[in-house]
Amino acid sequence: MRTPTAAVLVVGNEVLSAKVRDENGPFLARRLRELGVQLLSIRTLPDRTDAIVEAVDAERRRATWVFTSGGVGPTHDDLTVPAVALALHRPLVVCAPMLEALRAMHQRYTGDPDLPEPARRMALLPEGTRLLGDPSFPTLVVENVVLLPGVPEFLRLQFEQLAPDLASPPFRLACVYVRLGEDRLAPLLDAVALAYPAVDIGSYPRFDAADHRVRVTLEAKDPREVEEALRALLASLPDGALVRTDGP
Amino acid sequence: MRTPTAAVLVVGNEVLSAKVRDENGPFLARRLRELGVQLLSIRTLPDRTDAIVEAVDAERRRATWVFTSGGVGPTHDDLTVPAVALALHRPLVVCAPMLEALRAMHQRYTGDPDLPEPARRMALLPEGTRLLGDPSFPTLVVENVVLLPGVPEFLRLQFEQLAPDLASPPFRLACVYVRLGEDRLAPLLDAVALAYPAVDIGSYPRFDAADHRVRVTLEAKDPREVEEALRALLASLPDGALVRTDGP
Repeated sequence: MRTPTAAVLVVGNEVLSAKVRDENGPFLARRLRELGVQLLSIRTLPDRTDAIVEAVDAERRRATWVFTSGGVGPTHDDLTVPAVALALHRPLVVCAPMLEALRAMHQRYTGDPDLPEPARRMALLPEGTRLLGDPSFPTLVVENVVLLPGVPEFLRLQFEQLAPDLASPPFRLACVYVRLGEDRLAPLLDAVALAYPAVDIGSYPRFDAADHRVRVTLEAKDPREVEEALRALLASLPDGALVRTDGP
Repeated sequence: MRTPTAAVLVVGNEVLSAKVRDENGPFLARRLRELGVQLLSIRTLPDRTDAIVEAVDAERRRATWVFTSGGVGPTHDDLTVPAVALALHRPLVVCAPMLEALRAMHQRYTGDPDLPEPARRMALLPEGTRLLGDPSFPTLVVENVVLLPGVPEFLRLQFEQLAPDLASPPFRLACVYVRLGEDRLAPLLDAVALAYPAVDIGSYPRFDAADHRVRVTLEAKDPREVEEALRALLASLPDGALVRTDGP
């Protein structure tokens, strides 16, 4: 089975203008990793239709799943849903179960059974959108695009409604902490990277008072590949270079 | 004068795989805002040449400045410099002042006056790269692309060497906190957004126990535009809807 992939699009002027620090990208990065999904990119975009259409169009072709965050409310700066419809060449149509979910939520919050017009617009969804999970707070999925809200608590609830459908075998990670600088380490890593192309090898130098100068990460889905690459790297280190290893 | 714009490309598998939380995107977002530069996008990319080339090529055409973060070290996963050279159609050439800076730094850290081969590779830069600021720790700029390191302390130092060249008049921001929900607020914001197209208007709902249900932000470079849009919005609010205002 091929490793499923994902792209995250955070729609929000408030993040680009540093009014708010994005929580949704890091949350989705962590959860997707736990679920064995490889995240290919996180893009923070302005509240502009052209920017959202272009990013959805590019990412939906290369990733198994595209997650959008934000821009799904009733105001003029909520442009994600019509932009996704444009990117997928699907008309916006009234989704009756969504209209009922919005009406019930409005009544619960305000006591008023009549949904105002701007909120009714939130039931206009790309044709063919599927509503998953709790019908009163559904997760919206159209083709491989998942439309999540920007409010972090709501995003998490809606993501978790879909999470069981995403799960794939976990990544296996080994870490090697060394006293060598990257200068000395580079040719050793080149050799291991060449011999084990299925293993992702990262090299993270430090310049503080830690007990190591570089942390090397070795990661793949097949634990044997990780173990073999780890063994090859350890065998190539000069005496005294190793501080410790973690995992896999 | 047109508002200068920027795009940030964070190169790092470690962020996408949730091993590290990116600090550089939020730092650059905050500093660029303070400097009056409009940030158009932040993309977190994998350590892959094709992904970096494509992103540099797209962003350098639409932004005044493109900042890359990470991928400038000596190991196999440091691909940003050759990828920028490819995106700009410039050959990689040995940069003598960079070679001297690297040699001096290596000597300071290790006592060894001979620079190892992998570190010498870090002096291969796109032809025409300019070295700005402290010659022993220069900021690398080629065309409108600024190549910053991934280590946050170093990124900050190198960014600040360039910051005075970026500065533009500041953004002016007013905030309006209201008791209305977005449902009721939407048509009022539509009217203000239409009447003041130069003002960026954001609407941020809350669903907790705060004293307001929505924060509206009004932002532009011209303080008069912000004040007029603010006045128009306040005049349109129904009695009792306003909690308070901040700024401009």
